[in-house]
Amino acid sequence: MADKATSDVSLTRLSTADADFDASLNALLAWEGVSDADVRHRVDEIIAAVRTRGDAALVEATNRFDRLAVSGVGELILSADRLRQAYAGLPDEQRDALAHAAERIRVYHEHQKPESWHYTEADGTLLGQQVMPLDRAGIYVPGGKAAYPSSVLMNAIPAHVAGVREIIMVVPTPDGVLNELVLAAAHLAGVDQVFTVGGAQAVAALAYGTETVPRVDKIVGPGNIYVATAKRAVFGQVGIDMIAGPSEILVVTDGGTDPEWLAMDLFSQAEHDEDAQAILVGWEREHLAAVEEAIERLLPTMEREAIIRQSLAARGASILCRDRDEAVELINRIAPEHLELSVAGPRDWLPGIRHAGAIFLGRHTAEALGDYCAGPNHVLPTSGTARFSSPLGVYDFQKRSSLIECSAEGASALGRTASVLARGESLTAHARSAENRIEP
Amino acid sequence: MADKATSDVSLTRLSTADADFDASLNALLAWEGVSDADVRHRVDEIIAAVRTRGDAALVEATNRFDRLAVSGVGELILSADRLRQAYAGLPDEQRDALAHAAERIRVYHEHQKPESWHYTEADGTLLGQQVMPLDRAGIYVPGGKAAYPSSVLMNAIPAHVAGVREIIMVVPTPDGVLNELVLAAAHLAGVDQVFTVGGAQAVAALAYGTETVPRVDKIVGPGNIYVATAKRAVFGQVGIDMIAGPSEILVVTDGGTDPEWLAMDLFSQAEHDEDAQAILVGWEREHLAAVEEAIERLLPTMEREAIIRQSLAARGASILCRDRDEAVELINRIAPEHLELSVAGPRDWLPGIRHAGAIFLGRHTAEALGDYCAGPNHVLPTSGTARFSSPLGVYDFQKRSSLIECSAEGASALGRTASVLARGESLTAHARSAENRIEP
Repeated sequence: MADKATSDVSLTRLSTADADFDASLNALLAWEGVSDADVRHRVDEIIAAVRTRGDAALVEATNRFDRLAVSGVGELILSADRLRQAYAGLPDEQRDALAHAAERIRVYHEHQKPESWHYTEADGTLLGQQVMPLDRAGIYVPGGKAAYPSSVLMNAIPAHVAGVREIIMVVPTPDGVLNELVLAAAHLAGVDQVFTVGGAQAVAALAYGTETVPRVDKIVGPGNIYVATAKRAVFGQVGIDMIAGPSEILVVTDGGTDPEWLAMDLFSQAEHDEDAQAILVGWEREHLAAVEEAIERLLPTMEREAIIRQSLAARGASILCRDRDEAVELINRIAPEHLELSVAGPRDWLPGIRHAGAIFLGRHTAEALGDYCAGPNHVLPTSGTARFSSPLGVYDFQKRSSLIECSAEGASALGRTASVLARGESLTAHARSAENRIEP
Repeated sequence: MADKATSDVSLTRLSTADADFDASLNALLAWEGVSDADVRHRVDEIIAAVRTRGDAALVEATNRFDRLAVSGVGELILSADRLRQAYAGLPDEQRDALAHAAERIRVYHEHQKPESWHYTEADGTLLGQQVMPLDRAGIYVPGGKAAYPSSVLMNAIPAHVAGVREIIMVVPTPDGVLNELVLAAAHLAGVDQVFTVGGAQAVAALAYGTETVPRVDKIVGPGNIYVATAKRAVFGQVGIDMIAGPSEILVVTDGGTDPEWLAMDLFSQAEHDEDAQAILVGWEREHLAAVEEAIERLLPTMEREAIIRQSLAARGASILCRDRDEAVELINRIAPEHLELSVAGPRDWLPGIRHAGAIFLGRHTAEALGDYCAGPNHVLPTSGTARFSSPLGVYDFQKRSSLIECSAEGASALGRTASVLARGESLTAHARSAENRIEP
């Protein structure tokens, strides 16, 4: 690791003019998030155990994987009072920052609430949709080194704004380590109860319920490969948000931003973990070189230098493209989780951007501001899934029911059409049910 | 089967007053949708083959499973022209009915489009969300006996309304059998291209693309256990809609609807297949008995008598409850796919109904009208998943990007908060990236 840390950063340099650019870009972006058969098998076993033996299996798995020695689930519950204490006990500066972030996140998400709607046709037939919150949501929060209070806010506040009746949080405490900031954030975000359990066993408990842990309707939040595999396995029994891959950023520069700012923005992505991906795109060759120099210069000053170095070497890249149009093509092809448009007039770019989790516009909008407190959610689609997925939001904690009320006249007219189509599908009970409503 | 067809329908009779009601209801509702390890293994193999060998593997699997003898994917493509021909060739009555249904479905779904939004704060910071359609959607349509043109309309029209650039449909043609109504519906719904492939191999081709089949961003539509297992396996590589279980209805009656109408409404659910579930709920004992008598009387007149009989015997029920409030409790506990409120003043019930896929209000609103042409989607959450899922809709074919543009002043204020929180999480590159934007 020491050798690695003193070597040059071998940020991959690509140019869209390269003959093999397509293949190189595909190789750079490749990420296989699917878990292998062995992990699947172990997760299936854990889920089956918790489903069959409930609390007992949950306690066994927790003692084993988190190296604890509790005798019952009772010892794995944190009350709302305990969360309030954690909040009250924070240093003023942290408590104020957390409260400031929570308030901004709440205000932003209030804008996302879908509304019930309906319309009435000339014959009196009413059609529409009724929007209702979930009864109960489960928030998975990773423990140990990656315990992030900001993730608690980002996962729980949208559920709270949606009107979810009960928010259950699970967070593992490996070796008994508990993060006070995480508990304080849970208090602020409106979490009702916390269980200090994690892994596939926590996902199973939330999906099926145990004697003590209530069954939830949806499980959200990031986790390791066991958590991701368990979420995929229980999908359908409960709702899940998404299967998250490593975090990534695409920074587009027009040459006008301080290279040191851009270097630090790339670092802020790379420092997450060795699999994180930071990509720089621009059409000014000398400016890209200046950013690469800034990276070299600043790297030795970083606390998480080794992780950043490894992440940049393995998955980072600096891509020279022809012009702005080609940059937009690259954005849509990569469909990045985070897109930083460090350019003049960034709003002009928006109509052309079809795929991105979050778009940070302009030189002042560092991704880190969005990670914590700008307001929008930091749970975002990764690994190109912005092609079809959205940021976590209030809409993830609500669902819709179709409304259909036919007037006698409306049912009669619709009955004729339904009858023809049902008979075309050989579904004659459907046809006769519709025909019963046809007026003579 | 003849014996079965002439025996009494043993519709399960339950009463909420029964001592073991909870356990009986749980047993009635139990449905294990998860595929076994053997199916998973075979599906994994098919997916791996198509992913590795593309067209060749797709052709092999199609020849094998659909008993065909084609020599290349070229023989498995239907052009837009072919779809138009199918539409033109329909009998007038069917063409008009299909067009009537398509137009109503289109108008309804136009109401569902989410809008982009943003707001600007006092310091000039802009926050919002941009809504964009998917580039390419894949519609899976079952072939053979369950080839339903109405499902083509219900899956493809929301994609078209959403603004999806390209809609690809797959439909298997076992033994070469092609359904002209299905092709005509594809034409009406705006499908761009059809591949006559099915099963896990079709899902794999859509998810990863082959030399001929373009990779899509989301796969929707129902299918058998292999299709469902394949959809679950590729979830994350592409979006999927949901894992559908057998179709079900809960009919609530206040005693004022013609028992023969209610019997036929229950049949229209039960005739789908032997696993379909039709449940009647009411608080008038004699009225429930009258519906049961109507069931016995009408059953011998039904074309699909054997299926209906088997479905009602295996999974049907008549539930006597105490009153209207208890009926609402049952609705929310069951979270039915289809809820028929065959009662006076059905709108008064709406605020209490938290979970249902589609709500059919009043005596004239047979579920069959909604299945074909009322307007709302007939792809609905099954097996209690209405607790957390919505009807298929335009929102399934669009996604959102968060927008964040900080003014210099805004970035400076947010930078202070982000810095404190990032340092609390030991993410110092995040902190320094934010601090770069703090004005002195």
